[in-house]
Amino acid sequence: MARLVPVSDPADPRLADYVRLRDVNLRKSLEAEHGLFVAEGEKVIRRAVGAGHAVRSLLMARRWAEPLSDLLDGLDAPVYIADDATMEDLVGFQVHRGALASLERLPLPTVDALVSGAAGRAAAAAAGPPRRVLVLEDLVDHGNVGAIFRCAAALGVDAVVLSPRCADPLYRRAVKVSMGAVFAIPYARMTDWHGDLGRLRAAGFTLLALTPDQSAVPLEKASLDGRVALLLGSEGGGLSSRWLHEADEAVRIGMSPDAMAAGVDSLNVVAAAAIVCHTLAQG
Amino acid sequence: MARLVPVSDPADPRLADYVRLRDVNLRKSLEAEHGLFVAEGEKVIRRAVGAGHAVRSLLMARRWAEPLSDLLDGLDAPVYIADDATMEDLVGFQVHRGALASLERLPLPTVDALVSGAAGRAAAAAAGPPRRVLVLEDLVDHGNVGAIFRCAAALGVDAVVLSPRCADPLYRRAVKVSMGAVFAIPYARMTDWHGDLGRLRAAGFTLLALTPDQSAVPLEKASLDGRVALLLGSEGGGLSSRWLHEADEAVRIGMSPDAMAAGVDSLNVVAAAAIVCHTLAQG
Ligand SMILES: C[S@@+](CC[C@H](N)C(=O)[O-])C[C@H]1O[C@@H](n2cnc3c(N)ncnc32)[C@H](O)[C@@H]1O
Ligand SMILES: C[S@@+](CC[C@H](N)C(=O)[O-])C[C@H]1O[C@@H](n2cnc3c(N)ncnc32)[C@H](O)[C@@H]1O
Repeated sequence: MARLVPVSDPADPRLADYVRLRDVNLRKSLEAEHGLFVAEGEKVIRRAVGAGHAVRSLLMARRWAEPLSDLLDGLDAPVYIADDATMEDLVGFQVHRGALASLERLPLPTVDALVSGAAGRAAAAAAGPPRRVLVLEDLVDHGNVGAIFRCAAALGVDAVVLSPRCADPLYRRAVKVSMGAVFAIPYARMTDWHGDLGRLRAAGFTLLALTPDQSAVPLEKASLDGRVALLLGSEGGGLSSRWLHEADEAVRIGMSPDAMAAGVDSLNVVAAAAIVCHTLAQG
Repeated sequence: MARLVPVSDPADPRLADYVRLRDVNLRKSLEAEHGLFVAEGEKVIRRAVGAGHAVRSLLMARRWAEPLSDLLDGLDAPVYIADDATMEDLVGFQVHRGALASLERLPLPTVDALVSGAAGRAAAAAAGPPRRVLVLEDLVDHGNVGAIFRCAAALGVDAVVLSPRCADPLYRRAVKVSMGAVFAIPYARMTDWHGDLGRLRAAGFTLLALTPDQSAVPLEKASLDGRVALLLGSEGGGLSSRWLHEADEAVRIGMSPDAMAAGVDSLNVVAAAAIVCHTLAQG
C-alpha cells in the first residue's frame, strides 16, 4: 500500500517533479534531466501505469485517495496529499482532474526497431510489424501531436515516427488530448532528420508527403497499398522541401474552390491526418 | 487617417476593451455588454474589417503601425500605441502577433434567414441558399469551434448553426484557430434548443446525427444527397439524446477494433467533422 504523505509547502523539494506544469521550457529540461513525465487524471494515470511506466509519486487532494484506492494499493511510491491552494501554487493552475502522477519514461525504440515490429510493446508485437505509419515533421503544438495519436488509435494506424524536433507526446497536454493513446500507439523519434526517411523506404514503405499544393496527386488517386508512411508537416511552414523531395509522391486533400477567398489555404494538420487515416482505413 | 495615441497605463479606461483577454468569463460578459470582440494579428484584423465589422480601436506596439499603415489610413478610430510591458499587463499575456483590434459585432441572422440564404453576407447570397450545414451542439471549447469553421471553409460547407450554449466563434482564440474563416462562413445561433432542429427539417434538410455509437449507420451508407445538416456533439457527452432522437439518421465513422483497448472511444469532434465534410465534398 502506498504511503499517504500530507504536504503543505509548494516549495517542498519532494514536490519538485510537479513544479510549474505550464512552463514548457522549464518542463522540457526538468523532464529530460530526470527522465520523468506528469500524467493528469485518473484515466490517464491508469493507462500510463498499465503501459509499464513506473510511478515516482502521486499528488492529489485527499478526496481523490478513495476513488483511486485500488491503484494506490498496488503502489510502492509516496502519495502526496495537498489542499487545492497548495497544488495550484505548485503547478501554476487549478487542478480539475483530481490526481497528478510523476512517472518514469521508458526508453524509446529506434526507427528501425519500430518498423521491424520489435518495438517491444505487447500490442504492436501481437499485430506484427506496422504497415501504416504517420511521420510528423516538427509539429511544435502538443495539442496537435496528442490529437494525431488519438486519430491514429481510432483509425487503425500502427505506429508514429517523430522528427527530431517534433513536440513530446508525453508532455502533459499531449497525453491529455490523446486520451492516453500515446501509451497504446508505439512511436519512435528520429535521430537523423536527413537520413531516417531513407530507413523507412528501405523497410519497404511508400512515402507519401501530405501537402495542400495544387500540383500534388489527389488523395483518391494516391497509392495506398502495402506499407505506407504518411508525412505531415507543421502549421506554419508545412513539410520541408527536403522531405517533399524525398517522398515517393506528394498527395493533396482536395479543398473547396472558395477556401482561398475565405483566407484558408490548408487544413489544420489534425483534420488532414483524420481524413487521410480514414481513407487508408477504408482501402 | 487614424490617430496614433500613445498610452502607458494598463488601467487607462480607453483600453477597457482589451482587459484580461484570457479570462473567459470576464470576456463573455464584457463583450456581450458592449457588442464587441477582439481580433489578434494583421491577417485576422484585415479579414474582420473586410467582413464589415466596424473598428472601435486598435492597440499595438509602435513598430506595427508602419506595416499596417494602409489599413490605418482608412480608419476613423483611435490607434493606441503601447510598449510590450503595458500590453502584457493589460491583456494578461505576451502579445506576439503584433496588433489587437476591438471590433463591433454584427447582428447574427436567425436560423430561418440563414437557411433561406438571406443571411446577408455577400458570399452566401451569391452562392444561393446553403445546402450543407454543420450544427454544433454545446461545443464549449473555442479551439474546436474555430477549427471546425476552418474545416467548413476548406471543405465546402455552406453554413454553421450553433446551439444556444455553443462557444462563441468570435472569441479571440476561436477566430485565430479558424484562420478567419468565422468571417467567411455564415452562421446563426439557435434561440430554441428544442425547436430549431425542426426548422432545419422544415427547410428540407436531412438531419444526420454523428455519433460513435455502434448501432448507427456507417458513413459510407448514409444519405448525403440534397440538403444535409450534420449534427456534432461535445467532447464529454456527445449529442444529447433529444437531438439523437430528433435526427433522421444516426451516422458513425467506423473506428479501429483496437481503439477501445487503446482507451479511445471516439474521435475528437474536429477530426470527425473533417472526415464527414471531406466525404460530403466528394459525393
Ligand atoms: C497547416 S498545414 C501547412 C500549411 C503550409 N502553408 C503548407 O503549404 O504546407 C499542416 C500540414 O497539414 C497537412 N495538410 C493540410 N492541408 C492539406 C491538404 N489540403 N492536403 C494534404 N495535406 C494537407 C500537410 O501535411 C501540412 O504540412
Ligand atoms: C468526442 S466525441 C463524443 C464522445 C461521446 N462519448 C459520445 O459517445 O458521443 C464528440 C463528437 O464527435 C463526433 N464523433 C466522434 N467520433 C465519432 C465517430 N466515430 N463517428 C461519428 N461521429 C463521431 C460526434 O458528433 C460526437 O458527439
